[in-house]
Amino acid sequence: MFESAELGHRVDKSTYKDAEPKLREALLDAQYDLHEDGSFAVLLIVAGPEGAGRSEMVNVLKEWMDPRHLVVKAFGPRSDEEQERPLPWRYWRALPPKGRIGILFNAWYGEAFVRRVLGDASASEFENYLAGIKHHEAMLANEGTLILKFWMHLSKKDFQARNKALSKHPETRWRVTPEDRETYKRYDKLKQVAEHGLRTTSTAQAPWIVVEGLDERYRNLTVGTILLNALRDRISREKPQPTTAKAALLVDTQPSVNLLDRLNLSQKLERDTYQSELAKWQARLGTLTRARKFAQIAVVAAFEGNDAAGKGGAIRRVTSALDARAYDVYPVAAPTDEERAQPYLWRFWRNVPRRGRIAVFDRSWYGRVLVERVEGFCAVADWMRAYGEINDFEARLSDFGIVVAKFWLSISKDEQYRRFQEREKTTFKRFKITPEDWRNREKWDEYVDAVCDMVDRTSTEYAPWTLVEANDKYFARVKVLKTLCERIEAAL
Amino acid sequence: MFESAELGHRVDKSTYKDAEPKLREALLDAQYDLHEDGSFAVLLIVAGPEGAGRSEMVNVLKEWMDPRHLVVKAFGPRSDEEQERPLPWRYWRALPPKGRIGILFNAWYGEAFVRRVLGDASASEFENYLAGIKHHEAMLANEGTLILKFWMHLSKKDFQARNKALSKHPETRWRVTPEDRETYKRYDKLKQVAEHGLRTTSTAQAPWIVVEGLDERYRNLTVGTILLNALRDRISREKPQPTTAKAALLVDTQPSVNLLDRLNLSQKLERDTYQSELAKWQARLGTLTRARKFAQIAVVAAFEGNDAAGKGGAIRRVTSALDARAYDVYPVAAPTDEERAQPYLWRFWRNVPRRGRIAVFDRSWYGRVLVERVEGFCAVADWMRAYGEINDFEARLSDFGIVVAKFWLSISKDEQYRRFQEREKTTFKRFKITPEDWRNREKWDEYVDAVCDMVDRTSTEYAPWTLVEANDKYFARVKVLKTLCERIEAAL
Repeated sequence: MFESAELGHRVDKSTYKDAEPKLREALLDAQYDLHEDGSFAVLLIVAGPEGAGRSEMVNVLKEWMDPRHLVVKAFGPRSDEEQERPLPWRYWRALPPKGRIGILFNAWYGEAFVRRVLGDASASEFENYLAGIKHHEAMLANEGTLILKFWMHLSKKDFQARNKALSKHPETRWRVTPEDRETYKRYDKLKQVAEHGLRTTSTAQAPWIVVEGLDERYRNLTVGTILLNALRDRISREKPQPTTAKAALLVDTQPSVNLLDRLNLSQKLERDTYQSELAKWQARLGTLTRARKFAQIAVVAAFEGNDAAGKGGAIRRVTSALDARAYDVYPVAAPTDEERAQPYLWRFWRNVPRRGRIAVFDRSWYGRVLVERVEGFCAVADWMRAYGEINDFEARLSDFGIVVAKFWLSISKDEQYRRFQEREKTTFKRFKITPEDWRNREKWDEYVDAVCDMVDRTSTEYAPWTLVEANDKYFARVKVLKTLCERIEAAL
Repeated sequence: MFESAELGHRVDKSTYKDAEPKLREALLDAQYDLHEDGSFAVLLIVAGPEGAGRSEMVNVLKEWMDPRHLVVKAFGPRSDEEQERPLPWRYWRALPPKGRIGILFNAWYGEAFVRRVLGDASASEFENYLAGIKHHEAMLANEGTLILKFWMHLSKKDFQARNKALSKHPETRWRVTPEDRETYKRYDKLKQVAEHGLRTTSTAQAPWIVVEGLDERYRNLTVGTILLNALRDRISREKPQPTTAKAALLVDTQPSVNLLDRLNLSQKLERDTYQSELAKWQARLGTLTRARKFAQIAVVAAFEGNDAAGKGGAIRRVTSALDARAYDVYPVAAPTDEERAQPYLWRFWRNVPRRGRIAVFDRSWYGRVLVERVEGFCAVADWMRAYGEINDFEARLSDFGIVVAKFWLSISKDEQYRRFQEREKTTFKRFKITPEDWRNREKWDEYVDAVCDMVDRTSTEYAPWTLVEANDKYFARVKVLKTLCERIEAAL
């Protein structure tokens, strides 16, 4: 990987003086075009050993371009906020929105490489980590992000020479840090780990570009030109039209039974039983979430269901048992501008709860494989890959100790009709029913297909779906509370 | 993953009688359209536990369709031929060509799932294996293969019921095999492994479809309809036009030095020295390849280089030291029809040597990132992903104990001109020079970029590139022989 980056590439002063202003101007232009185009984000990862010119390079880019559209982020020791959430959270927070360029120092490579170099990660763990990185970057690329990964390289000889030269003069001696000396000691190991890591994670969608870091002028022109070419190429490319044709592939094409048919929707609770059960499970939930050990875990509860299935009511019965300071409810409607400018999981990652807290989602990331699928808001390939991406997302939460509970509140088509009518008749409920609800109802069967696929493909040991028979609101609410208690109890 | 496949799906007789002939006819039509279209291969993987109806299903498909365009392959214990080559070899051999449908029983899943169920593979090894499968299937899909993976499922209860029913009657008792009893014992473990494995490897490009195997009619109609829809969808889709625009991305855009510039092409050997060195290294090579331990390894030697760099001469000096029965030389020119109908690595996989043998490739799989890249014969994304695919390929060879030696024979542009002229003047050499050689020469600089990228991205610890200074043929031949001896010596 590093063969070509140990040749002593240099650019002489006059060439640089000639090329630099042109490149700057072109980059600035391209940056504005990107901003105007607004259809994709640009992610630059700048990595490499200490002293190979990473920060100098980034400073030059910041100088050359408009810093307002440039987001630069380095990852030091994890903050409290970060420590109390799964690792990817800090990286999701740092993603650039569409129309902008984000520069991440080391990004998700830093921690992996360091752990491997120090021997804290086995070969096999490292392999798994690299595979996870590939998934993540593939997801970003599929969401439209233009990814370029620059590795600033310095040969061992040049690295030593640089440190010696800097150490000679009192004015520059401070630039040779203890980290530099550490880097030198572990140079061979780092090189070996990096070669393997770079090779494994260099893909057509997210290629690594190794740049010799020795000569500042060479470094600047090389990175700048590659960035410029990539921007120009992408902006000039025709925007792909999503093929929203229905994929019959995953749909059970035979008239037969499905998961939802098998639910016994006639299950109900009498008012008295309901009230005593409700009190019992709410008390249990209150106790569990106030337990000392609860501070070590967290809960993500997602509510999905037919329109008018009673999600709101069920959620209120849950939250009324909780300490008001311990939970947040996120109603998931159309995404905001800021959310639209990010990969679709971004708006959920941003709301992943800290340890000791509960996040309730009224509708969730499953919109991707429900409404977006049925309404053709995203391409077939997009919702098909979403199953795997969602499973990855929930695995990251679960691995961190977060209880992931998912409820599908199911009512019959007749019951929905009855509730719609009732809503239209009752003044204070009329706001709850819109023409869209009636339109959705026409696609009942397509939603059934989507729900069954969703359950089949995303009900995992670590994050199982609970199908809730919701024709009777009492029954549904108690089932939700009880399930939630049991899941939390198992995790404590 | 199996929720929907434990509901007892059934299709009644009359529905089936009505639907089956129509489906058969439509499938046969689609099969002929596929054959005529000829632009992609179809790969069906049929997997699942014993007794869930895999073979019955495949028999029905064979009955319904034209068996001439249908390739069915099951993988039993490995043959001698297969045992003496890396594992993937048997699967590569079984791939259907474009225009055909190939059905593989279990394919690459069988061995992985069994090893995991029996505890022969750790969780981490299993994870790595699944990641490898995803790479492999992504490669096939990128090469245009339509992949559908069917998992025939039977609930534990139904599985037991089936065995009981069959055991009752003497005429059917033989159908309950010892494997069935084994399957039952390990049912829960298999289900858990399969759920995880299916979920991890179900992608938009290669989705798993779980089919309840209980009812034959349901099974047949479901698989048939899904296959039909997928075929129809793909055949009707517009053929993508490869964007062969040059990707400036990987190219060093600054006028500077490159790997090839740094070679000292003036190195030479005098005739006398050459003859004694040649004799010495040929003797060494002869001895090494006849050693007892050589039967445990194998050699793959790839020769690339500028036109007229002397590949043929160097190869002859190698092979003349070898036992004529122990090696094959594969000249790699334009692919045959059969090879064109397969992923580009297929023609190299088919020629992977058995243990104890030597395969010499005169030009190689690197054509993808050299001539195909420079001439625009494949899309940018195709050659960019090829680096990773080639590294995977060579890793599989190396893991199996095969020595992978790769030589780039490098001559200067002036020296090439001299040799071209000489060839045109000498009658018996004239066949060696064509207008194409002159045309290639015009793209000298683009080839230089491609060669440097190739070395940077595919020179690995397990399969390093050797750059051979070849202005002097004597020097080049001896360097090749010596390198080969050293590599083999290290492996013995």
